[in-house]
Amino acid sequence: MTELAEKDLGPWLSPENLQQVRAQVPMVYVNIIPVRLDHCGEIEAVALLLSGDADKGMARSLVGGRVLINEPIRRAIIRHLEKDLGPMAIPLLPPSIVPFSVVEYLSVPGSAYYDARQHAVAICYIIPIQGECKASEDALDIAWYTKEECWLPEVTDQISEGHALVLQQALTHLGASCGKK
Amino acid sequence: MTELAEKDLGPWLSPENLQQVRAQVPMVYVNIIPVRLDHCGEIEAVALLLSGDADKGMARSLVGGRVLINEPIRRAIIRHLEKDLGPMAIPLLPPSIVPFSVVEYLSVPGSAYYDARQHAVAICYIIPIQGECKASEDALDIAWYTKEECWLPEVTDQISEGHALVLQQALTHLGASCGKK
Amino acid sequence: MTELAEKDLGPWLSPENLQQVRAQVPMVYVNIIPVRLDHCGEIEAVALLLSGDADKGMARSLVGGRVLINEPIRRAIIRHLEKDLGPMAIPLLPPSIVPFSVVEYLSVPGSAYYDARQHAVAICYIIPIQGECKASEDALDIAWYTKEECWLPEVTDQISEGHALVLQQALTHLGASCGKK
Amino acid sequence: MTELAEKDLGPWLSPENLQQVRAQVPMVYVNIIPVRLDHCGEIEAVALLLSGDADKGMARSLVGGRVLINEPIRRAIIRHLEKDLGPMAIPLLPPSIVPFSVVEYLSVPGSAYYDARQHAVAICYIIPIQGECKASEDALDIAWYTKEECWLPEVTDQISEGHALVLQQALTHLGASCGKK
Repeated sequence: MTELAEKDLGPWLSPENLQQVRAQVPMVYVNIIPVRLDHCGEIEAVALLLSGDADKGMARSLVGGRVLINEPIRRAIIRHLEKDLGPMAIPLLPPSIVPFSVVEYLSVPGSAYYDARQHAVAICYIIPIQGECKASEDALDIAWYTKEECWLPEVTDQISEGHALVLQQALTHLGASCGKK
Repeated sequence: MTELAEKDLGPWLSPENLQQVRAQVPMVYVNIIPVRLDHCGEIEAVALLLSGDADKGMARSLVGGRVLINEPIRRAIIRHLEKDLGPMAIPLLPPSIVPFSVVEYLSVPGSAYYDARQHAVAICYIIPIQGECKASEDALDIAWYTKEECWLPEVTDQISEGHALVLQQALTHLGASCGKK
Repeated sequence: MTELAEKDLGPWLSPENLQQVRAQVPMVYVNIIPVRLDHCGEIEAVALLLSGDADKGMARSLVGGRVLINEPIRRAIIRHLEKDLGPMAIPLLPPSIVPFSVVEYLSVPGSAYYDARQHAVAICYIIPIQGECKASEDALDIAWYTKEECWLPEVTDQISEGHALVLQQALTHLGASCGKK
Repeated sequence: MTELAEKDLGPWLSPENLQQVRAQVPMVYVNIIPVRLDHCGEIEAVALLLSGDADKGMARSLVGGRVLINEPIRRAIIRHLEKDLGPMAIPLLPPSIVPFSVVEYLSVPGSAYYDARQHAVAICYIIPIQGECKASEDALDIAWYTKEECWLPEVTDQISEGHALVLQQALTHLGASCGKK
């Protein structure tokens, strides 16, 4: 999961404090699948973030990050979408915060989904986007994929295993089988 | 559930045919809770239909009705919303058709939820509305209620028991407890 | 979807009547993914039905079938499980009938999910099995697969496209990514 | 939410540490509605915890508590059920950890759901119980209520507002309207 949220914490949680807290309790995250829908609500495209990675070349990831102290989940979703897709994305938040998935990333090596830095509990949402997106960080780009493209190895190979699970959960939840041509 | 959809069936399902079919298999329905949301996705109001009823005076009901042969659920939702809220309602259909509730109405007297005409399986959705609503039938009016008003006896007393369940399911699903002031 | 339920309809819905009804309204189905869980609720295996097929050799399919008139969904689930897995399967029905998926099979050629016989709306459930299963029909066998095996082409190639979607939805819903080794 | 989990944290999170962490990040909780089901999966009874309270007399609360660092959600559910209902409760964990509700308790006065000690994000589950329950703490007792009793003011008045919401969400999710006799 992206480190970008860290700087938003400002003076009240230094890197040292954050490291200490991460050793003591699970962190609450939101993982977001931004989608474009047609007027019937059918999925047209899914957004992933692209970033250069010294080790592996290109990497793709989901929008998302930490929920801050006393930050409602809805505000965390809006903040992370604005941070990653820009202020003109116009996300349509759903009427309920019941997630379509919850994924656990443990810091114990050998875990099904592993995060070396922390134990994170990610609450996952599919969020329709009505406006224009624009990468707000130099290091990042945004790419849109059809649901068929999301299943291609060249796309999934560049996503971390934990994010790939959430993407597949979203695709099947939206009715897009990996066997569909 | 409203009878309004019947006339949409046109020449290919006469009242006699419909009655015969209803005696043989369960009918697929969509029950819809139209809502207005603020920009964070928090519920501001819920729409109910008002109709005059010779026996009981005013009656309140949910938007919805039958799913027709070879009609996708998304199109049935759009058709019933347009029929009941007018063509300018601009509903925002969700990315997934997994419902927040399924309710069964049996035609067996004494059933928990009873429909004298038929066995109906109602697939239930909460649908945000972005446009303007206007009752498209003379006999109907549309009223918007806050989530607090939806729990008031004067509102719930005028809804059939089966529709009241779906409304309560929607309210609690959206985080609105009946004990909240 | 399997034809097995038809004979259960007994004298009150002849093949001719069923064919007439199918031309007029959508049919309500339940699609069931029977699973074995460990004591923590983690999935150990998924059951599929095997049947010989003159055209394609072996075919795999989900448990399920039609919901009958005035049959509650819970009873339809139990009836189809007993029919396909035998009377000692001891299914654990969930406290809620909100499905994890709804899938539409239209009888219009070219539909995403096509059923030549009918328009079916399938309400889909994952049902834990605690007892012993035994194919109750000569033409059928039951096979259990790990979640990894369910993603293998030799398994998915023998499932109809519409059932494969539901299986993939179940697997990802249970946290089993297709990329997991 | 109950304080009982605190002592389980053992030497690696002192009361001082816990207090510091709570001032810095949201805490992950599980809220659990233990239920007894009949063989069709229909709800027969709901368990609440009873405790004496110096201020308000009797108080009722949900089972649940904190998720510990690197503790999977399934293990946290099992641990809290064992702690509150005893080792012979035999809970049936669901195949999926997608919750039926997520509730946020903020430590900001005036919040819809308020927890003076912390910001908690509670992931909520309905868990069927197959065995025998026995209060494992002197201060606690367990009481079972029918779904009708759960709506009575004498029951709901003794539950904190935040827990009452989750109980109502569970009841309506299971098809039990507050208007049903």
